[in-house]
Amino acid sequence: MNTNKKFRLFTAGPVSVSPEVLNEICQPLLYHRDAEFLSIFREVIAGIQFVLQTKNDICLLTASGTGGMDAIVVNLFSPGDHVLVVEQGKFSARWSEICKAYGLKIKSFLLPWGNSVEGDQIKNILQLEPDIKAVLLTHCETSTGAINDIAAISREIRDISDVLIIVDAISTIGAVPFKMDEWKIDVTVFSSNKGLKTPPGAAFIALNDKAWAFVKTANLPKYYFDFKKYQRAIQNGIGTPFTPPVSLIRGIHKAILSIKKLGLQKFWENHRKMALAFRSAIQSMGLEIFPANPSDSITVIKIPSELNVDLIKFLLKEKYQMIVSGGQGQLKDNVIRIGHLGEMTHTDLKDFLLALEQILIELGWNITAGNGIKVYDRNSL
Amino acid sequence: MNTNKKFRLFTAGPVSVSPEVLNEICQPLLYHRDAEFLSIFREVIAGIQFVLQTKNDICLLTASGTGGMDAIVVNLFSPGDHVLVVEQGKFSARWSEICKAYGLKIKSFLLPWGNSVEGDQIKNILQLEPDIKAVLLTHCETSTGAINDIAAISREIRDISDVLIIVDAISTIGAVPFKMDEWKIDVTVFSSNKGLKTPPGAAFIALNDKAWAFVKTANLPKYYFDFKKYQRAIQNGIGTPFTPPVSLIRGIHKAILSIKKLGLQKFWENHRKMALAFRSAIQSMGLEIFPANPSDSITVIKIPSELNVDLIKFLLKEKYQMIVSGGQGQLKDNVIRIGHLGEMTHTDLKDFLLALEQILIELGWNITAGNGIKVYDRNSL
Repeated sequence: MNTNKKFRLFTAGPVSVSPEVLNEICQPLLYHRDAEFLSIFREVIAGIQFVLQTKNDICLLTASGTGGMDAIVVNLFSPGDHVLVVEQGKFSARWSEICKAYGLKIKSFLLPWGNSVEGDQIKNILQLEPDIKAVLLTHCETSTGAINDIAAISREIRDISDVLIIVDAISTIGAVPFKMDEWKIDVTVFSSNKGLKTPPGAAFIALNDKAWAFVKTANLPKYYFDFKKYQRAIQNGIGTPFTPPVSLIRGIHKAILSIKKLGLQKFWENHRKMALAFRSAIQSMGLEIFPANPSDSITVIKIPSELNVDLIKFLLKEKYQMIVSGGQGQLKDNVIRIGHLGEMTHTDLKDFLLALEQILIELGWNITAGNGIKVYDRNSL
Repeated sequence: MNTNKKFRLFTAGPVSVSPEVLNEICQPLLYHRDAEFLSIFREVIAGIQFVLQTKNDICLLTASGTGGMDAIVVNLFSPGDHVLVVEQGKFSARWSEICKAYGLKIKSFLLPWGNSVEGDQIKNILQLEPDIKAVLLTHCETSTGAINDIAAISREIRDISDVLIIVDAISTIGAVPFKMDEWKIDVTVFSSNKGLKTPPGAAFIALNDKAWAFVKTANLPKYYFDFKKYQRAIQNGIGTPFTPPVSLIRGIHKAILSIKKLGLQKFWENHRKMALAFRSAIQSMGLEIFPANPSDSITVIKIPSELNVDLIKFLLKEKYQMIVSGGQGQLKDNVIRIGHLGEMTHTDLKDFLLALEQILIELGWNITAGNGIKVYDRNSL
């Protein structure tokens, strides 16, 4: 296993995966209609409910996270339906792109990249536009690293409205606290290749009864993504309507077992501790964290104009075999993004800090080598 | 590797996968925007062109084969477009279900299950209904095991029409000869979990220029499955518009290398030899092959009414750790289906024959144990 390991992923996804999960994925294949697979599948569905903290039905799609977002729009809406999209970066803007593709009427609430949205901002819009049927939110905007306080936002919305609340939690589930039922979220989507620490290939959507009522009346055409087929397949005990990614699902099964073993709370805490220590260390190097409210799932570092983002990424890769995510859209030349989503230890992050320090010093940045690690250690105790 | 191998898959898909491919899939993950992955991705796209024998553009979707079929319909058509679907079993009927879901006007040509379609039958319909824009075909109808002679059918159609020819070759590519360009096929779809001998999770669609012209004018709404996004991503050198199944793609890369090493012709011949020998052996046991024109990718065996399909499947699994596919739809209690698509040797098929013989004898069927293998050997020389 791992014989030709060459690069270490510090990316926003796909992320590094544990040898245990990889080993599970490369077991001989199971037949998706056979009892052995169906037993694993049922446990995976229960596990997805567990990590989302929900009792709601789950649809497991063979698709990327974007496929899951697309599926939500085609299953819940009809052309002309009025929805509110909070746009604060590339991924939240994707909600708008999808809704536009399907002919929805979109109210876009545009925030500067890096900002988080507040509940009262949404409340104000909903009060002005009472025909809005749904609010489409993003838990962590992965292009900027900003987290939204979904619990607080939902409380504010629920004060005045029972509008549908739909959350893209693709880059937070497993890493950052999320409690679908307690927070009164109606629809949540995430994918296998982020906080679950498994490879890409599956998307999960949880829907409550209110959301299923939307599914019943929505008239956008669909077939492969038709949630009713997925619900029926589970009810009929056949798992999925179409061939699922059986090998990946074994890996997801293993990953959920390991989350359950450690405890979800502890899992979240570990991510928080790593992210806090990492951010302190980055700041101690004289660098800034891009968003005001950073997510513990990803750290987006502002790169000062005197330093070259591409050169830093190049040196990280070529000299230290470390791959990070670059900036997207308007942040293309201004940031690097370090995911904390993968199978990662304090040592991994400290290795990264050391490498970054060496590179910055090489590029003339005035810092002391080894200082970042000390700050990290002090803050991760 | 393969430490807990318990069951052997003789299914129609997912199929058994070689240790070499599984080992590749469980390598540390690659970042989908990194040069190393993109180089593998480009080779996979070229490999898919190779196995399809085409120079056409390829769209690689994170989806099952049905997702690929759905994507074809939403990308090429508009509501009301008139299409001809040849229905001869569960999977060809799926074309109709999808077209119906998207509001197309469907001419269904219904054949009894087990039959293959002839080119002149299609020609007659096209002559009567000149507004048909496309013919949706199935290379092998996996529910019945019947193969259609796509080369001959296409020749007949091309005699009189330049209608779009769309072929679901999900269960044949890699196993049965298919030459997209030579046969003048406009659109082909297949998936990773059949003749490529890799796990499920990716669908591939090849489109020629005529098909791309349809894409330009089609007005069904789409986002995740929008072929133009996939074409643009390849043209822009970023691989895919959305996160691809990076681990699976490494496996596909390895699988294609092994097909190239042996040669596609030889690969097809091996499947043919196995299927012929297997069918002879089955017939020597007094059993019938269900379709008149069996595909070399799957053998569908008629189970006489005095024998119990479920019991045979149960005994194969419990006593011999062998899993086969059962019948579907109207064939549910009448057939078992043995895929020849997976990583399979003569020994595997002979083991299966021995097991089936023992079971049939146990159930009172009057045959001689060991005879099937002899017939197999004689026919596989």
